[in-house]
Amino acid sequence: MDRLAVAVVGASGYTGAELLRLLVDHPRVTVAHVTAHRSAGQRLVELFPHLRGRPELEPLVCRAFDADEVAAAAKLAFLALPHGESVPAATALLERGLTVLDLSADFRLRDPDAYEAWYGPHPAKELLGRAVYGLPERHRRELAGARLVAVPGCYPTATILALAPLLDAGLIRADGIVVDAKSGVSGAGRSPTLATHFAEAGEGVRAYKVAEHRHTPEIEQELSLAARAEVTLTFTPHLLPMTRGILATCYALPADPSLPRAAYLDALRARYAGERFVAVVEQPPDTAHVRGGNRVHVGAWLDARAGRVIAMAAIDNLVKGAAGQALQAMNAALGFPEWTGLDAVGPFP
Amino acid sequence: MDRLAVAVVGASGYTGAELLRLLVDHPRVTVAHVTAHRSAGQRLVELFPHLRGRPELEPLVCRAFDADEVAAAAKLAFLALPHGESVPAATALLERGLTVLDLSADFRLRDPDAYEAWYGPHPAKELLGRAVYGLPERHRRELAGARLVAVPGCYPTATILALAPLLDAGLIRADGIVVDAKSGVSGAGRSPTLATHFAEAGEGVRAYKVAEHRHTPEIEQELSLAARAEVTLTFTPHLLPMTRGILATCYALPADPSLPRAAYLDALRARYAGERFVAVVEQPPDTAHVRGGNRVHVGAWLDARAGRVIAMAAIDNLVKGAAGQALQAMNAALGFPEWTGLDAVGPFP
Amino acid sequence: MDRLAVAVVGASGYTGAELLRLLVDHPRVTVAHVTAHRSAGQRLVELFPHLRGRPELEPLVCRAFDADEVAAAAKLAFLALPHGESVPAATALLERGLTVLDLSADFRLRDPDAYEAWYGPHPAKELLGRAVYGLPERHRRELAGARLVAVPGCYPTATILALAPLLDAGLIRADGIVVDAKSGVSGAGRSPTLATHFAEAGEGVRAYKVAEHRHTPEIEQELSLAARAEVTLTFTPHLLPMTRGILATCYALPADPSLPRAAYLDALRARYAGERFVAVVEQPPDTAHVRGGNRVHVGAWLDARAGRVIAMAAIDNLVKGAAGQALQAMNAALGFPEWTGLDAVGPFP
Amino acid sequence: MDRLAVAVVGASGYTGAELLRLLVDHPRVTVAHVTAHRSAGQRLVELFPHLRGRPELEPLVCRAFDADEVAAAAKLAFLALPHGESVPAATALLERGLTVLDLSADFRLRDPDAYEAWYGPHPAKELLGRAVYGLPERHRRELAGARLVAVPGCYPTATILALAPLLDAGLIRADGIVVDAKSGVSGAGRSPTLATHFAEAGEGVRAYKVAEHRHTPEIEQELSLAARAEVTLTFTPHLLPMTRGILATCYALPADPSLPRAAYLDALRARYAGERFVAVVEQPPDTAHVRGGNRVHVGAWLDARAGRVIAMAAIDNLVKGAAGQALQAMNAALGFPEWTGLDAVGPFP
Repeated sequence: MDRLAVAVVGASGYTGAELLRLLVDHPRVTVAHVTAHRSAGQRLVELFPHLRGRPELEPLVCRAFDADEVAAAAKLAFLALPHGESVPAATALLERGLTVLDLSADFRLRDPDAYEAWYGPHPAKELLGRAVYGLPERHRRELAGARLVAVPGCYPTATILALAPLLDAGLIRADGIVVDAKSGVSGAGRSPTLATHFAEAGEGVRAYKVAEHRHTPEIEQELSLAARAEVTLTFTPHLLPMTRGILATCYALPADPSLPRAAYLDALRARYAGERFVAVVEQPPDTAHVRGGNRVHVGAWLDARAGRVIAMAAIDNLVKGAAGQALQAMNAALGFPEWTGLDAVGPFP
Repeated sequence: MDRLAVAVVGASGYTGAELLRLLVDHPRVTVAHVTAHRSAGQRLVELFPHLRGRPELEPLVCRAFDADEVAAAAKLAFLALPHGESVPAATALLERGLTVLDLSADFRLRDPDAYEAWYGPHPAKELLGRAVYGLPERHRRELAGARLVAVPGCYPTATILALAPLLDAGLIRADGIVVDAKSGVSGAGRSPTLATHFAEAGEGVRAYKVAEHRHTPEIEQELSLAARAEVTLTFTPHLLPMTRGILATCYALPADPSLPRAAYLDALRARYAGERFVAVVEQPPDTAHVRGGNRVHVGAWLDARAGRVIAMAAIDNLVKGAAGQALQAMNAALGFPEWTGLDAVGPFP
Repeated sequence: MDRLAVAVVGASGYTGAELLRLLVDHPRVTVAHVTAHRSAGQRLVELFPHLRGRPELEPLVCRAFDADEVAAAAKLAFLALPHGESVPAATALLERGLTVLDLSADFRLRDPDAYEAWYGPHPAKELLGRAVYGLPERHRRELAGARLVAVPGCYPTATILALAPLLDAGLIRADGIVVDAKSGVSGAGRSPTLATHFAEAGEGVRAYKVAEHRHTPEIEQELSLAARAEVTLTFTPHLLPMTRGILATCYALPADPSLPRAAYLDALRARYAGERFVAVVEQPPDTAHVRGGNRVHVGAWLDARAGRVIAMAAIDNLVKGAAGQALQAMNAALGFPEWTGLDAVGPFP
Repeated sequence: MDRLAVAVVGASGYTGAELLRLLVDHPRVTVAHVTAHRSAGQRLVELFPHLRGRPELEPLVCRAFDADEVAAAAKLAFLALPHGESVPAATALLERGLTVLDLSADFRLRDPDAYEAWYGPHPAKELLGRAVYGLPERHRRELAGARLVAVPGCYPTATILALAPLLDAGLIRADGIVVDAKSGVSGAGRSPTLATHFAEAGEGVRAYKVAEHRHTPEIEQELSLAARAEVTLTFTPHLLPMTRGILATCYALPADPSLPRAAYLDALRARYAGERFVAVVEQPPDTAHVRGGNRVHVGAWLDARAGRVIAMAAIDNLVKGAAGQALQAMNAALGFPEWTGLDAVGPFP
């Protein structure tokens, strides 16, 4: 069986490295081309010594991005670029016939006005309608055969997987949702900053971008679909002293306060029956249990005294929250079983 | 000026050690007696090598608890005992004329029914009415001359300091409060468990005791006082991979949704003007900035889109959340300036 | 191609869990039986929620160890038992015709006197001669067809892989070796203790078992083989605030002080050419770069001023230092390519 | 009693912040001036929110360095500047009559040739002879009345305190010393780099500057004084995933291999009797036990099999390894008891 040649555009960041780690064990593709603007000319294993030892990766040298070069080498490209840089790259690659999986926020919002409100004017609005939101557990059918996939953000992935089934089932109200999210530091990327300096981040926790994080409209878009009503929510991300992991603790109002906890758990179980990557857990999900793999642990609780439903999801922000999800979406787009090359268990502890 | 002889009952845990670390630099007291049931006969500096080097602490040997012995040695006792063990110890010491500062939950709830609902029957209900809730920023006047002080829990301290001023001022509603709290592992004490084993807790985050943590009624009691209305709220504690620190992220509904963020910040500033230990911050409070000291950093935000107020407080769970607050309450009870022996800056980073 | 049925005896510890994580993706074996003494009757995924999601593992229930049951279910067994408990289990399983890979220290020392000096009398001395030391990079030929494999300790693996090639080549002296090793906390196992309590281990470093760690004779045995002379060395292990990883920093005296650094690097490169799991690195090896995988990063330096060679190796203590190495040794024993089921890249960061 | 006005030159780094944390509680001095080149005009508490709450620090605004301004405001200055920048500042301040405590390496080496070999030509060789090496436990007498103090490096402090007493007593040989040192990340300063990025440093250990770290000649200078013979040694620093702390594990050859461990411990105890900050410990010293304070824990072991003495010292790199030691040296220079303002116990855990 021939392997599909793929490219990783933007291989010098953590998401790029994670894509390469996963792709090298995918039985249906082969990594044919890698680009990294500022590291052009460097060997991949110099940028990322943890990739040493694989004959497939040892010879790879980073190239500057050139759409023609990418198109000559590959049929499909993952874009792991900063927000804003994906639009021109994706446009050029789509024109050249490639399938594009974009891991930035550039194509995630369907509504150009929402995009503009949070990011500024979109330079290629016509593409927004073409992109499929690459969360297979929610958009599997549209992903089949998709040419442009907007791979979801890490926070939205965790939040949507926790809450959407409860909205689908009409068990919680569309208003009154609060999402308190906790993230490891790798989500901030590989560029050193004071906020991600070990001595600053190592032993404390703090919120950031309170009430103004750009993942908010993405979460609202998908939850509104589930609720069949406009969802406006409060989203507060926090930075924790750990490298990987996102835990979304979500608070919602029960549609029927008399229902027991089991009703919410059952809804999750029904919705996720047959989902390879999602486990419904009774104990609070722990990001340590999904670290390094594409798994999601979700759970639900009822605070009967206060009249509130609490749903949680734990993921690895670099796998199910980025590179793993991109592969899963690729599998869905190309018609492979979704767990192809993605089924490995993450290391614990 | 004579120094007051004090005892630390339960010196083998982290709270006990922290009390000793602080008391040794308090200019008005002297540590005359320490007890530790299972470590009786051991030198304190063997249990806690970090206490080595101070001539005042080097000779101390842990004793088994004996009320007469404590009373012979000291005029005031700190009880750093597990919940349930403080009642008999406090009763015996009060009978012998000592002032008692209890760091357990045994005397924190004024309402015996609330106590019973969360802990079971209280063995000495009559004492509940005598105890003063030892949060000086809220109960300074009652603390003056108090003989029995219930030192607040760590989560309640952070939560109350974040929310109570907004309730005092009528700026937020009494219903609809959600508290999402994040704690370092030292809050779980010094007894090894799987949950606090380094390899289990070291690189993940998870909630625990969802909708059933016993600090809930304590928070509700104090916030109800501030709101002059019954507060029932959702409280979710999380365990983070760090040793010290609590961050309480609190969500509330604005009484008047048209008010700007400044209204909430101003209320905090007005309420905490002159409070030595509380700083109102504009950037999200970081537990790393209060680590090792008795400080509290509080802030407030408005999510105008979703119609929600977000208030946060960061403390060190072992200092302002336990031992430091106990000293502050002692200072208030004895009429010393509250920051006596407590003003040191915690080390950062 | 039929898969070989294997058993994991002692599945409730970290090594057992890591074996299962790796075995589930090994294309030539199938996990047919798991035992865990104190957790008999529990589902494996309850003990280790990170293993959820794999249809092969979900149904597994831990059994109490019974040699007949193991023999009925499997042809090969991994023993992940505490030291001392492997001898009777291995004896029983060997008698029943199984191949045994033991991850304890019970069969690592060839010399019964050395065993006795460090551990006490050996209960089955005759087996010591039959066991093959399961470090494929050193004992590949003896491993072919082996029936009893003593999988090396974590510290010996790192130390031997750093130093043996330099002794092989006569580049360093057999006397004067010092090994300063740094380990993550997972090496201490899953049983909670004060030393591995998060709050105690989380922000400090300390040595332990100074000049008396039981891995010393194992290192000396293998380095003596390389040196063709008796090696007696100083070995000091340290516990670091991280979960996984061992770094061995090894100090030796150069046989010829006039040789440049390149001589030592070249010797490593020559020795490890063709070794799938070993990379010779020029920058100091970082345990973060081998975390989660079966890789080894080794390097060598010359301190020309002081006349000393410094060799280092970094491994993941639970993979190349335990479970991964056991699989690699199994592959060698059974004639599979050594990297079968073991080639995955570990996640970074 | 009048307080001495002091200045902190270079207040925007961790050492500067630590100086301010300690100075604010020193009863004999007052902080009159702070400078920070790139942060001139900013309030100190904006740079370091952990310093909030102290009336003495709240009003301080960072100034650009101007020797006349410093001299107008203060009688004594601490220089917490990058290496190379202290020489001109110190020269200017000495000319203006100030006492200078320099925390850089600019004045630590007495031998201009040694300085030149490791750092390049020294721009003010004549000052090298005037500077006193500010390790009070070794140079107390010369410190009395000193006008220019070279505060020791963090690694030298730990190493010298572990080894010098054994050399003083002739118990170990001057040749054959190996120092394997482990440091927290704060030692690398506050400027973000890839090496100190949380995701890179958070879960691994690695050596750096192998056989070429500039603290080597400083250690050799002081140990040669103790040995009354030239000491040339191997020094290997390692970066650990923790914020504070240095552990120096030092290997040496016994002068008399027949002596028991007690001989080395006794030598440490005899040498450090009466030293307020040094505790001789029987268990391996743990950096967690000295974190946040000016304490040193030292110990000694004998590896009788291999014929080697192992001495260890643990310090907090920012306190006894920098700011605390600077205060201690100031106390010694000005004739205050050395523990004045420095006696606080660091927080544990």
